[in-house]
Amino acid sequence: MLIVMEANATSQMVEKVCTEIEKMGLKAHAMPGAQRTAIGVTGNTAQVDSDRILAQVGVKEIIHVTKPYKLVSREFYPENSVIEISSDVKIGGDKIIIMAGPCSVESRDQCLRIAERVAKAGAKVFRAGAYKPRTSPYSFQGLKEEGLKILAEVRKQHNLLIVTEAIDTETLGLVAEYTDIIQIGARNMQNYSLLKKAGQQPKPVLLKRGMSATLEELLMAAEYILNEGNRKVILCERGVRTFADHTRNTLDLSAIPFVKRMSHLPIISDPSHGTGRRDKVLPLSRASLAVGADGLLIEVHHDPANALSDGQQSITPDTFDKLTKEMQAIAAVMGRSC
Amino acid sequence: MLIVMEANATSQMVEKVCTEIEKMGLKAHAMPGAQRTAIGVTGNTAQVDSDRILAQVGVKEIIHVTKPYKLVSREFYPENSVIEISSDVKIGGDKIIIMAGPCSVESRDQCLRIAERVAKAGAKVFRAGAYKPRTSPYSFQGLKEEGLKILAEVRKQHNLLIVTEAIDTETLGLVAEYTDIIQIGARNMQNYSLLKKAGQQPKPVLLKRGMSATLEELLMAAEYILNEGNRKVILCERGVRTFADHTRNTLDLSAIPFVKRMSHLPIISDPSHGTGRRDKVLPLSRASLAVGADGLLIEVHHDPANALSDGQQSITPDTFDKLTKEMQAIAAVMGRSC
Amino acid sequence: MLIVMEANATSQMVEKVCTEIEKMGLKAHAMPGAQRTAIGVTGNTAQVDSDRILAQVGVKEIIHVTKPYKLVSREFYPENSVIEISSDVKIGGDKIIIMAGPCSVESRDQCLRIAERVAKAGAKVFRAGAYKPRTSPYSFQGLKEEGLKILAEVRKQHNLLIVTEAIDTETLGLVAEYTDIIQIGARNMQNYSLLKKAGQQPKPVLLKRGMSATLEELLMAAEYILNEGNRKVILCERGVRTFADHTRNTLDLSAIPFVKRMSHLPIISDPSHGTGRRDKVLPLSRASLAVGADGLLIEVHHDPANALSDGQQSITPDTFDKLTKEMQAIAAVMGRSC
Amino acid sequence: MLIVMEANATSQMVEKVCTEIEKMGLKAHAMPGAQRTAIGVTGNTAQVDSDRILAQVGVKEIIHVTKPYKLVSREFYPENSVIEISSDVKIGGDKIIIMAGPCSVESRDQCLRIAERVAKAGAKVFRAGAYKPRTSPYSFQGLKEEGLKILAEVRKQHNLLIVTEAIDTETLGLVAEYTDIIQIGARNMQNYSLLKKAGQQPKPVLLKRGMSATLEELLMAAEYILNEGNRKVILCERGVRTFADHTRNTLDLSAIPFVKRMSHLPIISDPSHGTGRRDKVLPLSRASLAVGADGLLIEVHHDPANALSDGQQSITPDTFDKLTKEMQAIAAVMGRSC
Repeated sequence: MLIVMEANATSQMVEKVCTEIEKMGLKAHAMPGAQRTAIGVTGNTAQVDSDRILAQVGVKEIIHVTKPYKLVSREFYPENSVIEISSDVKIGGDKIIIMAGPCSVESRDQCLRIAERVAKAGAKVFRAGAYKPRTSPYSFQGLKEEGLKILAEVRKQHNLLIVTEAIDTETLGLVAEYTDIIQIGARNMQNYSLLKKAGQQPKPVLLKRGMSATLEELLMAAEYILNEGNRKVILCERGVRTFADHTRNTLDLSAIPFVKRMSHLPIISDPSHGTGRRDKVLPLSRASLAVGADGLLIEVHHDPANALSDGQQSITPDTFDKLTKEMQAIAAVMGRSC
Repeated sequence: MLIVMEANATSQMVEKVCTEIEKMGLKAHAMPGAQRTAIGVTGNTAQVDSDRILAQVGVKEIIHVTKPYKLVSREFYPENSVIEISSDVKIGGDKIIIMAGPCSVESRDQCLRIAERVAKAGAKVFRAGAYKPRTSPYSFQGLKEEGLKILAEVRKQHNLLIVTEAIDTETLGLVAEYTDIIQIGARNMQNYSLLKKAGQQPKPVLLKRGMSATLEELLMAAEYILNEGNRKVILCERGVRTFADHTRNTLDLSAIPFVKRMSHLPIISDPSHGTGRRDKVLPLSRASLAVGADGLLIEVHHDPANALSDGQQSITPDTFDKLTKEMQAIAAVMGRSC
Repeated sequence: MLIVMEANATSQMVEKVCTEIEKMGLKAHAMPGAQRTAIGVTGNTAQVDSDRILAQVGVKEIIHVTKPYKLVSREFYPENSVIEISSDVKIGGDKIIIMAGPCSVESRDQCLRIAERVAKAGAKVFRAGAYKPRTSPYSFQGLKEEGLKILAEVRKQHNLLIVTEAIDTETLGLVAEYTDIIQIGARNMQNYSLLKKAGQQPKPVLLKRGMSATLEELLMAAEYILNEGNRKVILCERGVRTFADHTRNTLDLSAIPFVKRMSHLPIISDPSHGTGRRDKVLPLSRASLAVGADGLLIEVHHDPANALSDGQQSITPDTFDKLTKEMQAIAAVMGRSC
Repeated sequence: MLIVMEANATSQMVEKVCTEIEKMGLKAHAMPGAQRTAIGVTGNTAQVDSDRILAQVGVKEIIHVTKPYKLVSREFYPENSVIEISSDVKIGGDKIIIMAGPCSVESRDQCLRIAERVAKAGAKVFRAGAYKPRTSPYSFQGLKEEGLKILAEVRKQHNLLIVTEAIDTETLGLVAEYTDIIQIGARNMQNYSLLKKAGQQPKPVLLKRGMSATLEELLMAAEYILNEGNRKVILCERGVRTFADHTRNTLDLSAIPFVKRMSHLPIISDPSHGTGRRDKVLPLSRASLAVGADGLLIEVHHDPANALSDGQQSITPDTFDKLTKEMQAIAAVMGRSC
């Protein structure tokens, strides 16, 4: 950690900051320069509340040399974490895992129909929302527990694992009972009460990057879950909000090698939300695997024109067949399988 | 609402879309052009789930002529909503309301000390967080119920109203018991379970704009609260995330006249979070009133250097005295008082 | 084109707008709705100056159904444009073209040394800047004409084609004499005088997307070049500026399939500038080809530690060898060669 | 300047970096930490090319403690620069200067008509473009020299000074002959050839912030002009590009106090381009003065509905009368006049 002082900071101000640092059990190294003084801080700075230092008189800025995350960092755990979902399905290893299904659970018939196709094409995990966070209170909000029951039936009939979203602390327990992976969506990435509760139960968590979250914030959100004792976290890049208007979001594929370097956690890509456009799902799926993603989350609907949500970014089962074939080819180039 | 078809959409596709529209009880007006067909839709389109239309084959995009919000819109309620917090304090009328206090409740002594000064300087509402959403699980998380009790004492001793944040549905009820205004923070702007619960109780709600929320999303979040029956919503611009690196956030002051045009709800400005830098709070406070804000939310700490959170953006009570004087001058120019 | 009127626009205002439209030789279709009127416009709207309509009293917004570009659009020219650089090297066809070399021409020795390696590894085009647009006036500004002469020697000795940047209209002619492809950089994407001049000469132009340019703006910039008579334009995605701070820019790979759909022009990717970090060049190169790019622009330096510019994003010749091998594998999956 | 090494950097790597630093005539202070080493650099680091250091093996990042600009910085020149345009009109002093006029010179009659009104209302400088950089090659490109002659007549008849844009190095000399202030637009903020040429002549330069320029880049662009010998530079905030879609650009008013702190140069605000919407010009003009701007640049047109460019953001002369009155009131609060 480095503390940069204002150009006009007095030596008393510098001393006061050094004293504060040392009160925290750390070591301060004052380094006077031509125009201003910087103070290097060594010791275990991971848990320092930097607001306290920033607020000292004469402090200009604070620069973190050591990253603020700990449990999620690769320095803490140098191997890749491989998250075991079932005896067959592991995320973060050599095998790339494709999760597919409709945006929302709309009916038993709809889910079983789509599940049959995606299972046949090679998906290992079925995705569909029973609780839907929607921008408008007038949009379809999901089938709730009835939806969870339908998902249970999908698991049984098609031997698929289930990932579905928990949107609040009240229903998280119920979602956890029914699902194999609990999804925490982009809008809830910094809903810390929800993250803590997800960390206090044993089911794996799929944590999506917030719409304008830095990777440090994404990793800190994961840190909340690990800090409660649950180490089974899978990250997900799903596009960020930028000025660009040709897609709904801008899929930031550089996040994937960056996260892999900084953290031991696996990371998958969601090109359906990441672009918001059906005809971009295939090319961005290929790119996601080529950049190093551990899996994909794909919206598939047998009848996108009548989907109750996200129809414009859902691909058909036929297109999904094509997608899984292309993914096998790319995975092979990456020395992985699919 | 206007539906734009792809250039190569067939007349069958156009007809199918028109049929769908009419099934929804709306009227479709096909309008063939030189290169493509557009379909105008009239009737009450406010509650249409546009995903359903977007997903039809041949549909390129959908353009909302009518805005999706209803209860919050000025077309629905043409007057300014004036939110009565107490018999003396109303937000959205001629009087500009200044809310001030520390980022966090740290201790009884700290709060009473700051409260005395801000009350004397003219603040009507005391702000301080008892529940703190922090990026890091290792940062100070707030005094929780103990903090709420301190706030109750501040109200009593200094005749200040209280605004404090509720961060989850579990504790919202408790927060509501103690506070006069419930704050919903930027990170929770799209926590719909929390919004609904805030809408089901009678206390006024201060809803902050999310870090990358469009104004339509902000208004839709407010719509969730009004839709549950609580019309006492105060909006708050607190800066958005952009590429600019000279401030923590970019305070988007154009949001204020825009919201006032589209909605009847009052809107205040938070230049402390909006810039993240103490020395920018005064100029941006002046600019906020000059652009038309109904109030300000200001972080004040008697000892910013030892604040447990946000010290770098807190001003001292002396600076706050200066701020309130400057605000009176600007308010007068605006034909308001302060 | 659709014109949306304000909710309170009178029928006289609507009529006035319709009259204006018809004066322009177009057809106006007024479409009264429950809350407001929209006016559809058909005919050749491509060259309409929409500012004129927007400025009419009562007009709320204008929506372009037809895109404003013409010569660059795929509707205008449905095939892929294949840009012939030499009898051997064509961009936009089955063969993926890799352009590689240092950021700047630093010396004859440096260029020949790097050129030998990249030619051997399979690059067809050598890149290096003789004129350098630098943020600081105190940074190295390039060897100018001396640099161009060195590039001419590289062409001769290593049978590589040359791409180098022109930064102003004064020197564009000189650059064109020496180079095979004229690069127009991100900072000059909307330097229309330069674009026009590039359009008035016959050498192919590599046009990079501006740091915050929409794809429509990129295509309109290309339209300037084509409109002057030069149809040999190659587009380049090189990252855009967002809030994300883990890379220098955010490489927007969705731009590539989008451009290919809207335009007949080829598009390549620059993962070196697109990420600004050496260790991200390989994964993002793979992703660029997987998403459909027609080529790559890669910074290679034999001694990045002593490069006069962009050393932190340059890879070594050894890494470049590895890169070209990986690219062959990805190209094969895409049914292309490399 | 601080150099942060990778966690796994060896002591040899650290030593090599220190040696490099000292070769540059600077002093290196190695500071080993628990997890990694940082190297403080003191001496005159302003002209160091940091790329060279970043490219060393083992270097993770480089942090600038001293800012890279020099001539524009307030440390270099502690007073406010007051730019004298004429004996009467100075920018950066107590008097706020309003520049107003149409987007483009359309005709002699149009300019004289608007000039009469804005002069009467109190504007000191007339703005209008003779050379227009337009996104589309099919939009009106300006009257060029004929336009400059019309501006000369405006100056003579209405005793107004003139500001007009130069878009390339070829015509800059001609523009300089006719105008009192040369405008360099947002799209050309990093057109360094143009900046240098503007720095080599004596007329004041109005430099607009680029659409996605950081303030450091804006100041570095100004540094190019000062470095050539012209110290008469006026900066201009005109909105930046963000995800927000309710305005054309997001006017970043925090830029104004920031620039004033870092630099001695005056800065004005352009709320017309900054919002792109006529009805936001008044409130954002008030806010601009309240935040500390030294002047305003306002688009005024007597007949916005028929303006050849930017009609939607132009206000009428009547509204401009109202604006100047409101500005006097705000200026008075700021202890300035208008």
